[in-house]
Amino acid sequence: MGKNLATKILEAHLAKGELKPGTEIALKIDHALLQDATGTMAMLEFIAMGVDRVKVELAAQYIDHNLLQTDNRNADDHIFLMTAAQRFGIHVSKPGNGVSHQVHLERFGVPGKTMLGADSHTTSAAGLSMIAIGAGGLDVSLAMAGHPFHLPCPKIWGVKLTGELQPWVSAKDVILEMLRRHTVKGGVGKIIEYYGPGVATLSATDRAIIGNMGAELGATTSVFPSDHRTREFLEAQGRGQLWQELAADPDATYDEYEEIDLATVEPLIARPSSPDNVVRVADIEGLKVDQVLVGSSANSAFRDLMTVCRILDGRRIAPHLSFNVNPGSRQVLENVADQGGIMMLLLAGAQIHQPGCLGCIGMGQAPGTNQVSLRTFPRNFPGRSGTKNDLVYLCSPETAAAAGLFGVVTDPRKLEGLMPWPNVQNPENYILDDSSIIFPLPPEEAKRVEIVTGPNIIPFPDYDPLPETLEAEVILTVGDNISTDTIMPAGNKVLPYRSNIPAISQFVFEHLDPDFHKRAKEKGNGVVIGGENYGQGSSREHAALAPRYLGIRAKIVKSFARIHKANLVNFGILPLTFRNPADYDLVKQGDRLVFPDVRRLVASGAAEIPVRVDGREIVTILEVSDRQRQELLAGGTLNFVKKGGTEG
Amino acid sequence: MGKNLATKILEAHLAKGELKPGTEIALKIDHALLQDATGTMAMLEFIAMGVDRVKVELAAQYIDHNLLQTDNRNADDHIFLMTAAQRFGIHVSKPGNGVSHQVHLERFGVPGKTMLGADSHTTSAAGLSMIAIGAGGLDVSLAMAGHPFHLPCPKIWGVKLTGELQPWVSAKDVILEMLRRHTVKGGVGKIIEYYGPGVATLSATDRAIIGNMGAELGATTSVFPSDHRTREFLEAQGRGQLWQELAADPDATYDEYEEIDLATVEPLIARPSSPDNVVRVADIEGLKVDQVLVGSSANSAFRDLMTVCRILDGRRIAPHLSFNVNPGSRQVLENVADQGGIMMLLLAGAQIHQPGCLGCIGMGQAPGTNQVSLRTFPRNFPGRSGTKNDLVYLCSPETAAAAGLFGVVTDPRKLEGLMPWPNVQNPENYILDDSSIIFPLPPEEAKRVEIVTGPNIIPFPDYDPLPETLEAEVILTVGDNISTDTIMPAGNKVLPYRSNIPAISQFVFEHLDPDFHKRAKEKGNGVVIGGENYGQGSSREHAALAPRYLGIRAKIVKSFARIHKANLVNFGILPLTFRNPADYDLVKQGDRLVFPDVRRLVASGAAEIPVRVDGREIVTILEVSDRQRQELLAGGTLNFVKKGGTEG
Repeated sequence: MGKNLATKILEAHLAKGELKPGTEIALKIDHALLQDATGTMAMLEFIAMGVDRVKVELAAQYIDHNLLQTDNRNADDHIFLMTAAQRFGIHVSKPGNGVSHQVHLERFGVPGKTMLGADSHTTSAAGLSMIAIGAGGLDVSLAMAGHPFHLPCPKIWGVKLTGELQPWVSAKDVILEMLRRHTVKGGVGKIIEYYGPGVATLSATDRAIIGNMGAELGATTSVFPSDHRTREFLEAQGRGQLWQELAADPDATYDEYEEIDLATVEPLIARPSSPDNVVRVADIEGLKVDQVLVGSSANSAFRDLMTVCRILDGRRIAPHLSFNVNPGSRQVLENVADQGGIMMLLLAGAQIHQPGCLGCIGMGQAPGTNQVSLRTFPRNFPGRSGTKNDLVYLCSPETAAAAGLFGVVTDPRKLEGLMPWPNVQNPENYILDDSSIIFPLPPEEAKRVEIVTGPNIIPFPDYDPLPETLEAEVILTVGDNISTDTIMPAGNKVLPYRSNIPAISQFVFEHLDPDFHKRAKEKGNGVVIGGENYGQGSSREHAALAPRYLGIRAKIVKSFARIHKANLVNFGILPLTFRNPADYDLVKQGDRLVFPDVRRLVASGAAEIPVRVDGREIVTILEVSDRQRQELLAGGTLNFVKKGGTEG
Repeated sequence: MGKNLATKILEAHLAKGELKPGTEIALKIDHALLQDATGTMAMLEFIAMGVDRVKVELAAQYIDHNLLQTDNRNADDHIFLMTAAQRFGIHVSKPGNGVSHQVHLERFGVPGKTMLGADSHTTSAAGLSMIAIGAGGLDVSLAMAGHPFHLPCPKIWGVKLTGELQPWVSAKDVILEMLRRHTVKGGVGKIIEYYGPGVATLSATDRAIIGNMGAELGATTSVFPSDHRTREFLEAQGRGQLWQELAADPDATYDEYEEIDLATVEPLIARPSSPDNVVRVADIEGLKVDQVLVGSSANSAFRDLMTVCRILDGRRIAPHLSFNVNPGSRQVLENVADQGGIMMLLLAGAQIHQPGCLGCIGMGQAPGTNQVSLRTFPRNFPGRSGTKNDLVYLCSPETAAAAGLFGVVTDPRKLEGLMPWPNVQNPENYILDDSSIIFPLPPEEAKRVEIVTGPNIIPFPDYDPLPETLEAEVILTVGDNISTDTIMPAGNKVLPYRSNIPAISQFVFEHLDPDFHKRAKEKGNGVVIGGENYGQGSSREHAALAPRYLGIRAKIVKSFARIHKANLVNFGILPLTFRNPADYDLVKQGDRLVFPDVRRLVASGAAEIPVRVDGREIVTILEVSDRQRQELLAGGTLNFVKKGGTEG
């Protein structure tokens, strides 16, 4: 029985476990990707590990998220990341060089490699046949320190592409079709592997768009074969020597199957406020549009932007409309400029911004109240634009440009009457420019680099190992379905402190209990009691490391959400569940808890951890791997790694 | 005795008074300029006047300041300003079309006209031989409603220019030389008129730079003759028919004199943190530079940006440096693009931003902690960049570009060894593009425009007329030298409420007394007691209209700063001084004051206003013009105008 491509790449990188869906495996990581929003903490964690130089084949720190610079903090983060990257042998992509995923594709991606990135859209590298997975900052810093990445072995979902896209329909419509069919949960626990005769009709950058928004399907990642289109892209980037052919065996099988005839895909659009709220563009034609944003990690390529330029060329954007272009990278902007695209955009009335994420992650470009915003972006979650009750639609560059001209949602196939289909192709040879990439220094030189830390950049704190017997007070009792947003709020007020744990800790449980941080600090060791599905939602690691900073040593709940539980272990908080859920009602805020002999119990592999509450004893369950027990004993993964434990 | 040019233009526009320095005059205003930071309140004030259409020859609403759009409020302001402008016959320059002063020069300015602008750098129009003055928002909305502008008649200061600038030295260095000689107070109460043979060596846009930073000298405005260089610029803009020759009579005299031999001007730079802290670039060579920003209202023209492009062409910006370009206008960007400048900038490693004010007014681009930032901007006041204790230097585009290449402050004349002096000239014919200007609608159509007001845009409140007898409580007593920054703080937290008086009022005296707004609201009518020089600093009108919103009806102080006193009258607050300064000590917070028969006293022209305090009587002085008495009686200038009072 033949192997599919995902299995081949996973096998070649398997450091632990077997490829049985659902069981824990560990993968050797070749490339590490950091961006600046998650990267400052990941870099502080890497520094805390005491490793001298990254151990992956290639690591790259992108500065693409926090470009607003309303005060010193963004610029301080930038210089911190640049100097730290230089110190440890990490590439830097400077502010304005573009979105990480696009730049990695252009300058660094290699078919068949694995990549771990502290960004959920790391999956874009599917376009270059990489197995590229998004993860938390600590996971990426561990990978940079040479540790394999642990994950539940995913199923492989084969999606066969046949036929060819019609004029005015593009890759964005393909992934919107996947979202229309399968919703934002359709890919959970799966790697999506695209195969079949339709694959060759898509360029590497088209495939990156489909891989990018695999994240919206909830997939672990996606992958495409490496074929002549892959070689064509790498050669156009002056990197043809890195190409190799990669494909599933002819008789390969998959855990699940799907098929899309590309010729039947229509222009699609995701309505507010979920990427799977997909309808045909034709179904909502005529809706007045106030703002259009072109760019982001989902439609960042030359073809995407030049298609917009050609549609607007010699025409005028509707007067009431704000039409904004965020080039995916400096390289894209230069190649578009070289073909006259900048003048086409300017003379049509578009605003051209520097390359970067910008409005896609709510860094500016927020629409007004009740304004309809059409975006070529991957996400339209409520409020992500920065505006409450926003009305954000996701679509292809063709659909965005058509709305720009007509001022209302318009099926781009209607442009056929105005102009021939531009059918833009990527350049055969890109203008190449690495002027905004800082390459790693030789090790001896790197050791001499001084890391510049502004006043808001606070070293990762030291966390104690687990004591023999833990005594702690219940600081807070909460109910069911508490999300990580409740534990550690985000937003403009909180985000600038992401590299300052003492400061960000003051916002823990802020909306539920503004005094939580004070009380926890005062009481020394603390415990939080919770109900079912505790820690659901975003994977943010600050929801574990900030409570730990405040002294929280254990959480006892009815059940945990998976990622938050892993984060608790990473930062040395015992993730315990009630053996008897009714015991939840026995434990109150202010109770003094004793965990007798807990260190020995954790070390011995005990599943049950008894807890004395107010004279009585209840039993809690600790269900973690042997590796995780070692991490808990050490007081967290960083301590474990620092004292020589291996993550293998 | 011959007349100078300033006197000729003033005479042609004199609506009231005589041209005797220090006496009040009123000028007919031809053009009105609004930007978005001050414009929302000015527009609300204009709406409150109930005037159907602007009565100036030309009014333009620029959207160039608040382009960050971190939430709905900026975009809501934009659509409010655009629809209100359409409603009242005002031109709109959309976001991304450029800095007001540059765009006005390009598309609207006319030699010999007067202009009032709600922006202190309105004085840039000196480059087109306009008498252009910065003022508060209410002053500009009054001008738009057809009222003349009142000001103390300025002295005319003749500055004779001889010789010609050396290579690598440019207009910015000329105004820095003026600041070096005369400091930020040197121009107070004066119009600076440039004349002499050196004038013809400067283009209209060079002159605009010198006029722009006349504001930094404290001057009322500046003016240049209209000559063949003026015609050349207007013709290049397709507006040659608007040219007329304007010059001082050959035997003209001035109130004061100065002379600059352009050939002796060296590359200069203003050190932190005042525009008059000027030294020779050569004196601080070698200082490491972290950030360079090119653009703003001071060096916005084609020549300025293209000079930077030519210096960087084929070279690389120093790797550690962040080099940012803010084009002055879309037209400049298009003309630079047309001559290949964009590729020169990109390939050198520069970041190109959309046209607008951006970092010049602290909207992004803040430098990091302890970072040296070189800017071609007009101002480097402490913290204006958004970073506390910032290190901002002001210089020419030549000096900025030299620092970009070398990474340290470098006399641009040292570039001579690397390249010939680029000697860039403005185009003989600009590419013209008004795609981002919305022209006024015909009156009948304009009346049908619906003004869109987002949730943060609150109509200008109704203020009561002055009662017969005023009873009020002392809400706060403050000491000497209270600035308008203390009365009405600015900053990121407060500025987004500039079109929302109820919300912004909650910040009045916030740093001195956080409960002030609550107490004032509770008490009904209120009084503030102050010492010497009350209301110094910024001219912001919110420091009067917000206290008035909270019920403040009188301020009794030892002495007032001039502009704040005028603002108090504008918003119906009695600006009273103690006849006997020792009475200051008699009045305490919480005292109930009675102003018996105050309405009749104000109406009758009485200089003395008795006030009963706690059984005793003190005497206060009201020193205002007859016009201002009418405004006080009406409860403020807007009420006065609405009930048919004239501002003439």
